[in-house]
Amino acid sequence: MSALEQLIEALRRLPGIGQKSAQRMAYHLLQHDRAGAQQLAQALQHASAVVGHCQRCHTFSEHALCPICSNAARDARLLCVVESPADQAAMERTGSYAGYYFVLQGRLSPLDGVRPQDIGVRELLERVSDGVVDEVILATSFTAEGEATAHVLAELLKNRGLRSTRLARGVPVGSELEYVDLGTIAHALVDRRAT
Amino acid sequence: MSALEQLIEALRRLPGIGQKSAQRMAYHLLQHDRAGAQQLAQALQHASAVVGHCQRCHTFSEHALCPICSNAARDARLLCVVESPADQAAMERTGSYAGYYFVLQGRLSPLDGVRPQDIGVRELLERVSDGVVDEVILATSFTAEGEATAHVLAELLKNRGLRSTRLARGVPVGSELEYVDLGTIAHALVDRRAT
Ligand SMILES: [Zn+2]
Ligand SMILES: [Zn+2]
Repeated sequence: MSALEQLIEALRRLPGIGQKSAQRMAYHLLQHDRAGAQQLAQALQHASAVVGHCQRCHTFSEHALCPICSNAARDARLLCVVESPADQAAMERTGSYAGYYFVLQGRLSPLDGVRPQDIGVRELLERVSDGVVDEVILATSFTAEGEATAHVLAELLKNRGLRSTRLARGVPVGSELEYVDLGTIAHALVDRRAT
Repeated sequence: MSALEQLIEALRRLPGIGQKSAQRMAYHLLQHDRAGAQQLAQALQHASAVVGHCQRCHTFSEHALCPICSNAARDARLLCVVESPADQAAMERTGSYAGYYFVLQGRLSPLDGVRPQDIGVRELLERVSDGVVDEVILATSFTAEGEATAHVLAELLKNRGLRSTRLARGVPVGSELEYVDLGTIAHALVDRRAT
């Protein structure tokens, strides 16, 4: 395989990129933006090398604790549970939330064999047992699997005497949090309901 | 800027990729496909290092001569002039053309200050003076600038006693060759007309 074909194949691994787009990107980089190709190569290697997970909330972080977990000024009584670092970032960008986060590794999916221990539920239950958290906001997706995950978590939290809430249904049903407009997320946060 | 932000910024330099897509790609690579990130970084660096231009037709090539120019079995009387390596690849994928190519560096654009010497017209005129080429197929885009480029080239070739043809207008007006379906290109090749 030629270097050009290898590059096209590597670009095709990016989400949402098919053969045509990959080809177009490869030709563009080689013909008009070799500096961009170098920049991207270095950014990929640098990020792969230094980006790990926050020990406390498990979002992406270059340090043991992410900037949010390191910020003592946030409200420690609130913990928002999301499915991914992308969802955490979307929530944070609303500017409407002052508590801390816990980032699951996806959501429960019995059909695909994804069980509670696979997405970090045990770590979540440890996290909420600090005696300070008093409301867990379940901000998993409003898909069937996200709702089921929220339901399972709500039961587990109730058994431990912990209060949980869910974002209001202002979030369009069937959608992934990451793609919802920020105003809708902010509104749903204000209207959160007990589970 | 964090390593994650640097990666998102580098991904945004890819054509057709906005902030949202770049974010989604970065999160995907870091969370689910670090091997893909490594593969892409290496492919970018390898391609940047080894992919140059064919000395004869100026398409992308890892060697002094590209595989097509190295192939003595093609019809040396035909030379197809295109605007870019991507257009050359599209033409070649039709399987309808047996001659050689000459790849311009874009097309004439007086408004943007792109003159004949900027896109390799001098090299083209040298190339067609080998005494063997007897038809130059002008396969520049069917945009205003591509048509103007074909017109200028046709005049220059006529002055040198060389016959040129243009792809038939089966190619939709206003479109870039790279994005046209292959059957249309093949048909337009058969119907090429004298300029
Ligand atoms: Zn954290
Ligand atoms: Zn060549």
